[in-house]
Amino acid sequence: MLDCGEGTQEQWRRTGLSWMKLGHVFISHAHGDHVFGLPGMISTMGLLGRTAGLHVFGPETLRPFMDCVLQSFCDHLSYEVTFTAIDTSKHEVVFEDRSMKVWSLPLRHRVPCAGYLIEEKPGLPHIRREMIDFYNVPTWAINRIKQGDDWIADDGTVVPHERLTSPADPVRRYAYCSDTMYSPQLAQWLDGVDLLYHEATYATGEKARADKHGHSTAAEAAALAIKANVKKLMIGHFSARYDDEQLLLDEAKAIFPNTLLAKEGLVVKV
Amino acid sequence: MLDCGEGTQEQWRRTGLSWMKLGHVFISHAHGDHVFGLPGMISTMGLLGRTAGLHVFGPETLRPFMDCVLQSFCDHLSYEVTFTAIDTSKHEVVFEDRSMKVWSLPLRHRVPCAGYLIEEKPGLPHIRREMIDFYNVPTWAINRIKQGDDWIADDGTVVPHERLTSPADPVRRYAYCSDTMYSPQLAQWLDGVDLLYHEATYATGEKARADKHGHSTAAEAAALAIKANVKKLMIGHFSARYDDEQLLLDEAKAIFPNTLLAKEGLVVKV
Repeated sequence: MLDCGEGTQEQWRRTGLSWMKLGHVFISHAHGDHVFGLPGMISTMGLLGRTAGLHVFGPETLRPFMDCVLQSFCDHLSYEVTFTAIDTSKHEVVFEDRSMKVWSLPLRHRVPCAGYLIEEKPGLPHIRREMIDFYNVPTWAINRIKQGDDWIADDGTVVPHERLTSPADPVRRYAYCSDTMYSPQLAQWLDGVDLLYHEATYATGEKARADKHGHSTAAEAAALAIKANVKKLMIGHFSARYDDEQLLLDEAKAIFPNTLLAKEGLVVKV
Repeated sequence: MLDCGEGTQEQWRRTGLSWMKLGHVFISHAHGDHVFGLPGMISTMGLLGRTAGLHVFGPETLRPFMDCVLQSFCDHLSYEVTFTAIDTSKHEVVFEDRSMKVWSLPLRHRVPCAGYLIEEKPGLPHIRREMIDFYNVPTWAINRIKQGDDWIADDGTVVPHERLTSPADPVRRYAYCSDTMYSPQLAQWLDGVDLLYHEATYATGEKARADKHGHSTAAEAAALAIKANVKKLMIGHFSARYDDEQLLLDEAKAIFPNTLLAKEGLVVKV
């Protein structure tokens, strides 16, 4: 989970996903609209009898709030909540498991703030069923072939790994950048990501306000998408001044056509 | 406002009321489902540029959370938030203005907990237009008659106040009792209230659980309504185990027929 604004537990319930699917929460910065859902979510998981630990990552500035919530409301919590402070000035791996890595992304906001890049680990190649049948490869050998072995037939013929498999699925990458001023240095780490979420609080007409408050315009989000050669851009975190966010979408699309608007409950396939 | 669970600011927005209508928040106890809406609501009112103070009342146990929220998220708040600790063991006036008094109600829960009784102050009697016309009472005298004066006509006739006015509207009283075990001593303070909100977390079948967790059954809420001779009972705070709250309503109605179920967004005329 990336950030956790007020009402997140209600939104999660609407997805129909089990709470057990959620083990790690990555918080960008300690502003209310990004963290006020944590107390309720942590409490609710306790009421439901959760036992698996929950790991919260975020800037050091989030620690007092976490401490206070855990001390005031989580006296007899059935599971452990750990908080890990991340360095918001660095691009480094902050979490890793068997299937993915999560990298921090240094953002430029009014307070210490990090984005996150989620990167799948490379999978194994796919077995080509028809080749396995053709060469009469026995089942016991398949796992080793997936790992990279060639196949040596009974007559000594070497069938190369590449003939027996098709390439693994390409690694998918999703980057989340909120809240931040335009920060071209991000491009070096976001090159070719499948999906970039980038804040677009304002339209260019409010550029001065964007700078003052440490936010981006839709045009700036699109400029970063171009610079980083991303596949798709999703913009969000719109100022309440825009009754119709189409204005922001149009501004971004004029620069980077493959842009969409973030909305409550939106599901984007990567 | 009585208690402030997560998502309260969204619910308030749905009412269409201005935030300026809200000056005082009375919190029953420092459990998450009664307070996790405070941080977001306080922040939002700041973003909207509020200048009028906001007064939060609640048990002393709420203070650490209030302090933490104000310190962590309200650095440049445009208005002042004051917290006043109330004594949850006493029935006393905790707030008073020109139109109402708010009394604390000692509740019995796992942590220090207070209910609140909101009592209108008596209004002025209504002027009987036809009597004013009949006795030719001039406009300048009307305000004093409302305050209790008789009218002395030019010929010295005394027209008693009671003939010129009809009684003031009866004072309305609303009592809010959540969360609490059955507490018959409340009846002495709730006698005849127009509306009693009382928690009914469980049905009688779960009486042992209700006692263990410091909650009431629907039957107990209804028993208090009878004992306190209230006009209407609204039950709420239902355990998630009840898919259909009709069971709880039926149980209460069997004892106190004028009972209704609390629901999100429900408006009850007192």
